[in-house]
Amino acid sequence: MDKTARWLQKTLAYQFQDPALLKEALTHRSAARRNNERLEFLGDAVLDFVVSDIVCQQRPDANEGDLSRLRASLVKDTHLAEVAAAIGLGEHIILGSGEKKTGGHRRGSILADALEALLAAIYRDGGFVAAENVIRGLFAPLAAELPDSESLKDPKTRLQEFLQADGYALPAYRMEKSSGKAHKPVFEVSCRIEALQLSTAGRGSSRRDAEQQAATEMLLKVMKR
Amino acid sequence: MDKTARWLQKTLAYQFQDPALLKEALTHRSAARRNNERLEFLGDAVLDFVVSDIVCQQRPDANEGDLSRLRASLVKDTHLAEVAAAIGLGEHIILGSGEKKTGGHRRGSILADALEALLAAIYRDGGFVAAENVIRGLFAPLAAELPDSESLKDPKTRLQEFLQADGYALPAYRMEKSSGKAHKPVFEVSCRIEALQLSTAGRGSSRRDAEQQAATEMLLKVMKR
Repeated sequence: MDKTARWLQKTLAYQFQDPALLKEALTHRSAARRNNERLEFLGDAVLDFVVSDIVCQQRPDANEGDLSRLRASLVKDTHLAEVAAAIGLGEHIILGSGEKKTGGHRRGSILADALEALLAAIYRDGGFVAAENVIRGLFAPLAAELPDSESLKDPKTRLQEFLQADGYALPAYRMEKSSGKAHKPVFEVSCRIEALQLSTAGRGSSRRDAEQQAATEMLLKVMKR
Repeated sequence: MDKTARWLQKTLAYQFQDPALLKEALTHRSAARRNNERLEFLGDAVLDFVVSDIVCQQRPDANEGDLSRLRASLVKDTHLAEVAAAIGLGEHIILGSGEKKTGGHRRGSILADALEALLAAIYRDGGFVAAENVIRGLFAPLAAELPDSESLKDPKTRLQEFLQADGYALPAYRMEKSSGKAHKPVFEVSCRIEALQLSTAGRGSSRRDAEQQAATEMLLKVMKR
């Protein structure tokens, strides 16, 4: 693990007291029974907590819903995989021979899981503040340019807030038709704003999807007015 | 807040440096614009993390799935409400007049949210170790007698593991019938174990529910053999 220890010191400025923890964090389940799955469980939680703290500090006026969406955008697996790839984590992951042959070092889920496990291992090895420092170091550049929380909202929420800001009543969604077999249903929903005499339609394989589509169409209409 | 500060000192052995944080943590949204919703967001995360750590330590051999179920059983809202009620948190929550009249002090969701917010306020006020100590103090008795992880599994998982332990093949689930309208479907599913010549049936409003019911019936049958 000497090469890995040097890499860690260089990229994250952290040195393990217990090298066995570092090894466990980087061992994929394809390689050994003692692998990183338990550490990943803990790492997911410490990451969620520190990122929650970061978004609270960055957005002192945001409500719970906005904070939740901002956090989700930072800790989602595709994003963690990017962070892991950016620090070159992939080449330090210990894989079984099958995973190795099929490019496991570059697989998003394997990268994201190993990153989370590594954070937990640092917590176990060096305590909370050590883990927090590493997480802040990794996520600080991203936290500084967090996406506009508006853009992370789903269409129904955006439509509702857009209308409320102008003093209009909530849009009315109505199920117009449900068809198809029970295991493969199709829903058709209308979205209507009485005061503006506007109506749109949406369809989807769930009521929720159909409503979101109708809301998207309605947003386009009301924003053009 | 003097009465509340004394109660906190007595029950959780914590004293706030910044009393405004304590007040924010105990203020329900019905009472003020500056309420405990943001702290609840952060408190949920710190609680999840420390409880993850506790279950990892208590169950050094449990896999990720078991750890996840154990954590969920400890941090679910109904359980948090019990913990909050046990320390008498309800009478210190600041409610709007409507909520006060309708018994908001005893409502489970209000108690659970306030407890989470209080934990975040302690983290903000005294740092991670202060919050961790309070959480361990509250959850230690429960963590020491964590439920058997077996009993937290869903019926399909339990049936599968029961059969695998005896060297049998997996049970076969088959959709026998789906009826009802698309928005209110009824599914009927069979569960069959070829080698034992056993078959059971289940029905429910989703395929998953129907399968779980069929698995429950099958478990009863195979455990009686």
